[in-house]
Amino acid sequence: MPIADQTPSSPLLPRRLGDLVTPGLLLDQDRLERNVARMRDRLTRLNVGFRPHLKTAKSIEVARRVMDRPSGPAMVSTLREAEYFADHGVRDLTYGVGIAPGKLDRIGALRRHHGVELTIILDSLEQAEAVAVWSTAQGYRLPVLIEIDADGHRSGVPPEDGERLIAIGRKLHDGGSALRGVLTHAGDSYTLSRPDDLAAAAAAERTAAVGAGEILRAAGLPCPVVSIGSTPTASFAQDLAGVTELRAGVFMFGDLVQTGIGACTSNDIAISVLATVIGHQRAKGWTIVDAGWMALSRDRGTSRQAVDQGYGLVCDEAGAPFPDLLVLDANQEHGIIGARPGSGEKPPDLPVGSLVRILPNHACATAAQHDRYHVLAPDRRVIAQWPRIGGW
Amino acid sequence: MPIADQTPSSPLLPRRLGDLVTPGLLLDQDRLERNVARMRDRLTRLNVGFRPHLKTAKSIEVARRVMDRPSGPAMVSTLREAEYFADHGVRDLTYGVGIAPGKLDRIGALRRHHGVELTIILDSLEQAEAVAVWSTAQGYRLPVLIEIDADGHRSGVPPEDGERLIAIGRKLHDGGSALRGVLTHAGDSYTLSRPDDLAAAAAAERTAAVGAGEILRAAGLPCPVVSIGSTPTASFAQDLAGVTELRAGVFMFGDLVQTGIGACTSNDIAISVLATVIGHQRAKGWTIVDAGWMALSRDRGTSRQAVDQGYGLVCDEAGAPFPDLLVLDANQEHGIIGARPGSGEKPPDLPVGSLVRILPNHACATAAQHDRYHVLAPDRRVIAQWPRIGGW
Repeated sequence: MPIADQTPSSPLLPRRLGDLVTPGLLLDQDRLERNVARMRDRLTRLNVGFRPHLKTAKSIEVARRVMDRPSGPAMVSTLREAEYFADHGVRDLTYGVGIAPGKLDRIGALRRHHGVELTIILDSLEQAEAVAVWSTAQGYRLPVLIEIDADGHRSGVPPEDGERLIAIGRKLHDGGSALRGVLTHAGDSYTLSRPDDLAAAAAAERTAAVGAGEILRAAGLPCPVVSIGSTPTASFAQDLAGVTELRAGVFMFGDLVQTGIGACTSNDIAISVLATVIGHQRAKGWTIVDAGWMALSRDRGTSRQAVDQGYGLVCDEAGAPFPDLLVLDANQEHGIIGARPGSGEKPPDLPVGSLVRILPNHACATAAQHDRYHVLAPDRRVIAQWPRIGGW
Repeated sequence: MPIADQTPSSPLLPRRLGDLVTPGLLLDQDRLERNVARMRDRLTRLNVGFRPHLKTAKSIEVARRVMDRPSGPAMVSTLREAEYFADHGVRDLTYGVGIAPGKLDRIGALRRHHGVELTIILDSLEQAEAVAVWSTAQGYRLPVLIEIDADGHRSGVPPEDGERLIAIGRKLHDGGSALRGVLTHAGDSYTLSRPDDLAAAAAAERTAAVGAGEILRAAGLPCPVVSIGSTPTASFAQDLAGVTELRAGVFMFGDLVQTGIGACTSNDIAISVLATVIGHQRAKGWTIVDAGWMALSRDRGTSRQAVDQGYGLVCDEAGAPFPDLLVLDANQEHGIIGARPGSGEKPPDLPVGSLVRILPNHACATAAQHDRYHVLAPDRRVIAQWPRIGGW
């Protein structure tokens, strides 16, 4: 049955966990809504706009529960996401990967066909020149943010390199594009776990972005947007004066990496992989399930944290974690479950056919291995299937 | 455009690499065909049947170039694969994940709707009892192989545990199922790299399977099938006397892990991820591309080998590797390219918009991140798009 037929109204919708094909991706709707409400409260207190990152969910049903309005604003990580969300009415999007000039025509088509205002980002004069040439040829002032490198994590202009910042800004502003401001992402905050360090990372992210904006303005260039964000810094920021919008994505689902950082608890994690026990190696204390890395992803983000959660923390069918029970290893379609090394726990007896739920290292990576969410009510009834997209 | 419209005859098929959306998955057809021919030659010399594992490719177009006949035989890792290949005419399939009794009705439907003979595997008396009950209720002698644990890698009956082996075999044979024989997978061969060790692992895999078959036969039980296989042991086996069929999957594409094992060279690797340069951090020697872990997968299999290839080895647009140029790190949609640590190489100058190709750590994992292959002729023309499936 094609995914499109599996709408909430389908008479074939499984009603119970035991009716689902395993492995499958579960989404606890109440946890999702609680996570969203918590982040909204924070941002209201910090007096900053919200541009949720839809790369984690890639689902219009999730997006509508996270965005301010059905039209956005929102952030995307691929043009495929932009086109999908545009098809579903989202109109204010930012594409968070430095632009390759060969992609500009797809962005033009989005505007023509859907009226979408898609803001791009870039960090070099060569990109700015290509964008200016394209904007002039199209007669369209394409909105652009200059990416700032707050922490040496990845891309962006160093915030202290005012000369490069102004050269890029001027090329865009004078060259036919619409310079909108600056954007940064404190990616290195994912390596932190002490609240003070996280608050400091959030402050540094703010300082880098606000400072870059001031450099542009001092040069007579416009900078209405100062955009920052990551789930860790969003969760620990104390003051966002001068910042106009915050972006975050993982927070809506949570995951074990965020638990290790301290940005959520395991009770907040809204997605899990449902798996069936298919065998045992009792002499080794192993239980084998039908969820391997294809269902869990190869992400082992917690391996770099104080508490290594293997390929995931194992819960019972109701979602309650077993004490120290992990997916110790994963093959393509096999997960090997056993006690956390050194914990001395005796693994529970789970006969063949038992269902377990596995909390993920990284929500974005695990969800990407699936084409739909099986949405659960608090009583564990399956109340909907929400499709999700992939690709570029 | 839906995938289904992107057939080789579509007038919209991109003809050149530069017309493709990046990131995208490339498949060199000549390398695929060479890899298949080499494995076929080996198996002919070893006088053993061939059951290619389709979990690597998940594409009927690839499957038809690998299987003996359009009807099979073949191996699958999910029931979704079984249903997809059945839709395309494959009739002789083995499902290589220990059966959960809840999945038996889907297997029954495959037989009724398509006439598919799908052989299952199991390693416990509780599974055998459930299968026997189901077989009797259906009046269908479902074919079953008993999984043997050749090397402690994952699932399976220890080959020396004749009592359990016979109990399972008798339960199946007397209980209404069709006991077909034994199957093993020397998964630990992936950790080896010395030819002698690999030949020894292949010999041990053979010994375990043939020995288990002899135990069944000595107990008066049928064992027409003795099935072994993994790409490393298939590549280094010297003698397969007593083995009736060999299974392998990764060999058809090859990857950097297999290169580290010695089962192929980087010139044999048939798939790569096409990416576009989107920026630089020149002070660090970094080139940023639009292929992150979403396109490459999080698989870092080579991190446990003598030569760590990062998130992949970077090649020029023609597919020739740059000296010691790796994807050093990967975010969701960003890859960070730089010189192999300690190599002293100066990275090539790749302006924004340049195309590169990235060879994967693990073909199964990287291909799974994509919904189609862009198939290349030796002159790098894009001659077809082959869809691939996912899910369960």
